[in-house]
Amino acid sequence: MSKDKQFVREITPQAEDFSRWYIDVIKKADLMDYSPVRGCIVFKPEGYELWELCQRELDARFKETGHRNAYFPLFIPESFFQKEKEHVEGFNPELPWVTEAGGEKLEERLAIRPTSETVIGHMYSKWIQSYRDLPVLINQWANVVRWEKRTLPFLRTSEFLWQEGHTAHETEAEARQETLQMLEIYRDFVENFLAIPVIVGQKTPSEKFAGAKETYSIEAMMKDGRAVQAGTSHFMGTNFAEAFEIKYLDRDNQLQYAHTTSWGVSTRLIGALIMVHGDDRGLCLPPKVAPTQVIMIPIGPAKTRDQVVARTDELYDVLKKAGIRVRVDDRQDLSPGWKFNEYEMRGVPIRLELGPRDMENGQAVLVSRVTGEKRVVAQDQLVEEVERLLAETHEQMYNNAKAFMEENLKSVDSLDELKASMEQKRGFYLAGWCGSAACEHQVKEESGATSRNIPFEVQEHKSTCLVCGDVAKHTVVFARAY
Amino acid sequence: MSKDKQFVREITPQAEDFSRWYIDVIKKADLMDYSPVRGCIVFKPEGYELWELCQRELDARFKETGHRNAYFPLFIPESFFQKEKEHVEGFNPELPWVTEAGGEKLEERLAIRPTSETVIGHMYSKWIQSYRDLPVLINQWANVVRWEKRTLPFLRTSEFLWQEGHTAHETEAEARQETLQMLEIYRDFVENFLAIPVIVGQKTPSEKFAGAKETYSIEAMMKDGRAVQAGTSHFMGTNFAEAFEIKYLDRDNQLQYAHTTSWGVSTRLIGALIMVHGDDRGLCLPPKVAPTQVIMIPIGPAKTRDQVVARTDELYDVLKKAGIRVRVDDRQDLSPGWKFNEYEMRGVPIRLELGPRDMENGQAVLVSRVTGEKRVVAQDQLVEEVERLLAETHEQMYNNAKAFMEENLKSVDSLDELKASMEQKRGFYLAGWCGSAACEHQVKEESGATSRNIPFEVQEHKSTCLVCGDVAKHTVVFARAY
Repeated sequence: MSKDKQFVREITPQAEDFSRWYIDVIKKADLMDYSPVRGCIVFKPEGYELWELCQRELDARFKETGHRNAYFPLFIPESFFQKEKEHVEGFNPELPWVTEAGGEKLEERLAIRPTSETVIGHMYSKWIQSYRDLPVLINQWANVVRWEKRTLPFLRTSEFLWQEGHTAHETEAEARQETLQMLEIYRDFVENFLAIPVIVGQKTPSEKFAGAKETYSIEAMMKDGRAVQAGTSHFMGTNFAEAFEIKYLDRDNQLQYAHTTSWGVSTRLIGALIMVHGDDRGLCLPPKVAPTQVIMIPIGPAKTRDQVVARTDELYDVLKKAGIRVRVDDRQDLSPGWKFNEYEMRGVPIRLELGPRDMENGQAVLVSRVTGEKRVVAQDQLVEEVERLLAETHEQMYNNAKAFMEENLKSVDSLDELKASMEQKRGFYLAGWCGSAACEHQVKEESGATSRNIPFEVQEHKSTCLVCGDVAKHTVVFARAY
Repeated sequence: MSKDKQFVREITPQAEDFSRWYIDVIKKADLMDYSPVRGCIVFKPEGYELWELCQRELDARFKETGHRNAYFPLFIPESFFQKEKEHVEGFNPELPWVTEAGGEKLEERLAIRPTSETVIGHMYSKWIQSYRDLPVLINQWANVVRWEKRTLPFLRTSEFLWQEGHTAHETEAEARQETLQMLEIYRDFVENFLAIPVIVGQKTPSEKFAGAKETYSIEAMMKDGRAVQAGTSHFMGTNFAEAFEIKYLDRDNQLQYAHTTSWGVSTRLIGALIMVHGDDRGLCLPPKVAPTQVIMIPIGPAKTRDQVVARTDELYDVLKKAGIRVRVDDRQDLSPGWKFNEYEMRGVPIRLELGPRDMENGQAVLVSRVTGEKRVVAQDQLVEEVERLLAETHEQMYNNAKAFMEENLKSVDSLDELKASMEQKRGFYLAGWCGSAACEHQVKEESGATSRNIPFEVQEHKSTCLVCGDVAKHTVVFARAY
């Protein structure tokens, strides 16, 4: 049995078992490992680098829009959770509690933060006195913990990494504008950096963040048709301001509650990235988030080896200098074929092959991970050619994912149709909804699909509720979600 | 009373009460706030930015030397601490324990990590099988918790931010080389980026890291003569490899324990930065770590205001484009004098003033925070002039701190001399030491000074132990430490 065949058999095909495919890929691409703590994973370097690139890009976008980073405590006193009624109900079941520290039992239990609204609300009430102190535009990069019953690497882990923005504003209009601005930053980042198309919309009341007035989300479709909530932005109104006494003297010297927002994305983006773009050969990374964009592999017989490797190193310097993330694999004990498979499995967007014939002709071969296309290019135009292929690759990956999402976004008129359709193939289902929590609940009970959001843009507005048949208030996307 | 006077009186002079000076400065410069959780602070944006700049610089240096980032769980099962005897004794008193989570009592208590040796040791034992898997060179940026009895913002907080590198090697020699390489990276970073001179050396056995074979440190002198351990690098030998079964098949197919290291710096660097460079006017930031390197303040009467502000904005663009971190303060409701004080207090290295006269002459005025020197410079050479003054400022600050450290580094022959000398003025004290823990302990008991390290380089080797008078094995730096 050749190494190639052995390799291919190590990843379960998507069509056979999507969940096993996912686990096979993340293990084989060395992105993570399970830890000795239930539900917590280790982000290995190959996986963590994806997060670092997301961080760098998002952080720049946050700063461009006037936000600054800060850091708040990991621990939240129990009494803080009691202050916002919906918030405590939403998070209490998932909290880990520190009850002892420094050899003593604590007087008040401390929760590990599942999110920092409460402790930040407390601090903002100290910092904000006057309209002159507003807006406060702060973001935090941090670890948070939600003790999950069922976990899945990256997509649902007890501890995860995220950013959480928390802002306070003078007026409701400003807070609403901030909420939508950050939602748009997420949409733009996820679509144009991760090449993942999303549906942008508002959550129904039963799916909104615990304590928010309104929650907005971007929803992405995985290759098995299930949804991943890829980012959320919350308009809190004055809920947290009232709970934590965030008050300011306005321009007329009157005490007012501030209007607050919060917004976040997390390491579950890594899971989405894998499930949207991956295929039976393994990971497939969009160029902008690929830690290695080009893998260079010198090939050919032993006698020309030194020359080819030397030229590869020269071209490496050229690409590196142009800002392209490039690596060379010139290990001698592994065959080119083995390496080709390896980097395909790891999802490197471009493979560059250089052999003695290419040397003679002043050429190199570029191979696209996503299409398999081979391009023979001139060495003296290498930077331009690589940049072009990276840009094309991003477009192709986005378009492929977009086409897949559109194909699997269907319109249904009744719960029975939804159920029948879901049994055939999972996807997103547009349906009318009367606005009652009861109907929404029934959809979930009978089909397993939850309302993902009420899209800002739909091609067709549905007129009747899929459950009760009453007049539809909204057209909603339903789907099974991770 | 003018605003200026009012301002000056808000910072306690260093000579009057150094501790109060420190707290006054960090509060007034808005670097932090106390949190509702005992011993935990909030890193406000002005303080957090200092950490971000340290992170960016260190991270680049780690990656240049082949290290990659990863992320391990916050929680550590209790049984893990039991595996390395010294380690558990060292950290047990400081651990917070999670005993309940998700509404249930846990079967095994989980500690919040005080450092990650144990959980990383466990993972390395899974990842390392063969000499081909070595070296493993991983770093983690994370929050850690040590439940401290007495805390001080930045310098000693229950939760703090840090990086911890953890490496595993085939041979002892390689692990030793790594330990010293990282120590050298810390020295270079602290001296050449933070402008803080340090004494590089090895810790005595009683001051080494719990579980290490050898610990090395860099020690900095604060303006009150006390020491801050600014970075540590540990050679573990096979201690953790034996405790966690980190074994590999060597080139002769024999099972061997790996040799490991760990190394870290933390947000206490921010405290050191303030205490080394600050003065009675407030913070004084070395240029490389200053979030704002140049503050531009347009001045002059109302009638020329628009013109001056317009030109200021043009020059802002020029500096910004040159990669200088620059801000403009053109607020009209605050006087130039108030602003001058404000940015001096915040430690901005260079103030740029631009008034109508400067406009006419094509000039601008640069004022150095550290020397107070004013330089009239040509606008068309602004970038070069600013870069020159920033470089000079770094040199001056380093040299000032170095001169201060040398002045307050004294040689003593006996414990009585040490005590008498310390009563006069705190500082670093070089003394001979026989090598016994008893003598070291006695120094601590009687003088409050601890052994900081055994410097790699000393001008004078002491021949007798300061306590017992026996032959000195080492020349040691003693000092009171934060």
